[in-house]
Amino acid sequence: MKILKIITAAFILCFPSMQAQESLGTSSKKGLVSPDVNGTTVTFRLKAPEAKSVKLMGSWLPAKNWDPTTLDLQQKQDGIWEITQANLPPDLYTYSFLVDGVKVDDPNNVYLVRDIANIMNMVYIDGPKSANYKVQNVPHGTVSKRWYPSKGTKADRRITIYTPAGYENSKEKFPVLYLLHGLGGDEESWMTLGRASQILDNLIAQGKAKPMIVVMTNGHTSTTAAPGESAKGFYKPTMMAPDALNAEMETYFREIIDFTENNYRAKKDVNSRAIAGLSMGGFHSLYISANYPKTFAYVGLFSPAVMPPRNALSEIYKNIDDKLKTQSNNQYQLYWIGIGKDDFLYKNVADFRQKLDALHFKYQYVESTGGHTWINWRTYLTEFLPLLFN
Amino acid sequence: MKILKIITAAFILCFPSMQAQESLGTSSKKGLVSPDVNGTTVTFRLKAPEAKSVKLMGSWLPAKNWDPTTLDLQQKQDGIWEITQANLPPDLYTYSFLVDGVKVDDPNNVYLVRDIANIMNMVYIDGPKSANYKVQNVPHGTVSKRWYPSKGTKADRRITIYTPAGYENSKEKFPVLYLLHGLGGDEESWMTLGRASQILDNLIAQGKAKPMIVVMTNGHTSTTAAPGESAKGFYKPTMMAPDALNAEMETYFREIIDFTENNYRAKKDVNSRAIAGLSMGGFHSLYISANYPKTFAYVGLFSPAVMPPRNALSEIYKNIDDKLKTQSNNQYQLYWIGIGKDDFLYKNVADFRQKLDALHFKYQYVESTGGHTWINWRTYLTEFLPLLFN
Repeated sequence: MKILKIITAAFILCFPSMQAQESLGTSSKKGLVSPDVNGTTVTFRLKAPEAKSVKLMGSWLPAKNWDPTTLDLQQKQDGIWEITQANLPPDLYTYSFLVDGVKVDDPNNVYLVRDIANIMNMVYIDGPKSANYKVQNVPHGTVSKRWYPSKGTKADRRITIYTPAGYENSKEKFPVLYLLHGLGGDEESWMTLGRASQILDNLIAQGKAKPMIVVMTNGHTSTTAAPGESAKGFYKPTMMAPDALNAEMETYFREIIDFTENNYRAKKDVNSRAIAGLSMGGFHSLYISANYPKTFAYVGLFSPAVMPPRNALSEIYKNIDDKLKTQSNNQYQLYWIGIGKDDFLYKNVADFRQKLDALHFKYQYVESTGGHTWINWRTYLTEFLPLLFN
Repeated sequence: MKILKIITAAFILCFPSMQAQESLGTSSKKGLVSPDVNGTTVTFRLKAPEAKSVKLMGSWLPAKNWDPTTLDLQQKQDGIWEITQANLPPDLYTYSFLVDGVKVDDPNNVYLVRDIANIMNMVYIDGPKSANYKVQNVPHGTVSKRWYPSKGTKADRRITIYTPAGYENSKEKFPVLYLLHGLGGDEESWMTLGRASQILDNLIAQGKAKPMIVVMTNGHTSTTAAPGESAKGFYKPTMMAPDALNAEMETYFREIIDFTENNYRAKKDVNSRAIAGLSMGGFHSLYISANYPKTFAYVGLFSPAVMPPRNALSEIYKNIDDKLKTQSNNQYQLYWIGIGKDDFLYKNVADFRQKLDALHFKYQYVESTGGHTWINWRTYLTEFLPLLFN
């Protein structure tokens, strides 16, 4: 009995010892719950007895001229500040606190996500659509972080590959979706901010999407991997614009197709290949699908940057009208465009649709509310996946 | 030219738009660098003009009676607080700020790590040993998050599997290390806090460790996956003690071996299997290796919780002396024990060594400085891996 007590104590001590020596034991405010989610009502709380002001920023609050809206928390007893938000449409949102002007992550919420150099807390509101963004008790696919050799960029490059539940125990071949991120993203964005593996697991389990392999690349050819995941080390990430129009992603995309089809049980016919991306990834999807004839039967442009730079040096961006005509003549199953009414790229996409109309190029168009946000991109992915490989 | 400008502007806008709508645009203090690492000297900075006090906690600072040491930052111009730490031994450390008593993550450092319910920033000091904790320009293994079916616990359970660089393009079979976490951990801990994939990539590339498969389990059978990664959702994690002594991990470990050997090109002989773990994972490694005769030729106990609970119900914990005698008679290649002089389990491990000595049970013993910390566990892994599969 004595020894059992010692062991139990020792086990229990493992935790505070890590707290004391590694975790520093300060983030756990016992009894304080934040975010406190009740249906579509969320209360945010922070203990800050010495603060003069505590503000909340949240991705459900509209930005004004690119400036975030901030809401004041009220100070309650014991130095606890509080604010309640009601009637939030079920979704996955991000938020942060501002304590006397300093950005503070909620110390009672361990769920964080990074977007370029910004860390934000996540809060989940359950509902029919958002349930697909959550891990459910369904069969789960495998998510692998691999490195593929890129002769074009003379480097090994990191890539995220989703294989559907049961992949390893079958001999079946699967269709492939290439899923591309935006200017601020990397090979992790669709998994972290985009909840791609959860969406795939859930839609496949519901029979709404076909089991498929999903390949999530790093679209910045000037780097090999996400921040912290390459030999560049723990640097502070910034927007990587210089390589966005160098055409390397499009030029060397064949390497990624070959890597996938040589390393996975991938179906290799045009009707088993899809490509989709958000913002810059939509731009990439447009030019890759136009420059690789008879390669992709399904194309998805989510809030895409679409217009071609006329004086760009690469052949990739030239004669796009001719390439689109060829693409149209070659036929395809689906050309899907989604954009929000408030997106700053709305006009560009409208111009692009005019061009497509003039070319008699068929496409499916979805106009949503909202702007250039992950709220929309998760929705678009959820709507796009059921249309693939039918 | 005009269109190029529009496109370039559109691309550039992608970033602030995400800032404004998702990232909220507040964490990037231009020009402020923190942590500012110069050799073994690090300056930490935080802009907090309205704060009355800013403190620093760091994993290199000794804890006193489980309470973390805090150091005061000094206020400089423009509301910027600053502190410099010199002569830090090269390693990977964690730290946090306290601003007027509120725990604050460094908004200029996007590298964070979770330990149970604590989020901490990471700072890396380069040196011969710590270089193994960093991604280097060497061939990289693949890290997969998979789910294996557990009949024993009647659930699919999440598991992290490392396969060495080149695994996918060879027909070679590889030895397997089962690498187990502590009471506060899960199937992600060895990758996030333990830097296992970096250590493996680097030691293998240097020829210091054999290419191997490494299987990182979730040792809490009351759950199926790390916080946020199961259908339990985004709950606040706490220490999960109840299942630490229920013997399920040990009883059902055969499932994990079978899963690995049926799904990977694993060598299946005793000399190609190793098991190691930290703290509770050392406890698991001890009892699994003792209860599975002729299964593991290599055993590693890192700061282990070791003493058996005499009145535990399961056969797993009974007659451990006899089981150790059998294990000794069956022979093995290595039984490795590492612990720090300041570890609260030091005395328990000393008692266990006395028991082993009395049984003429051979082992290799490494006594380090420090306590029950990831600084030690990364070091132990770095020392243990070269001894395997020779």
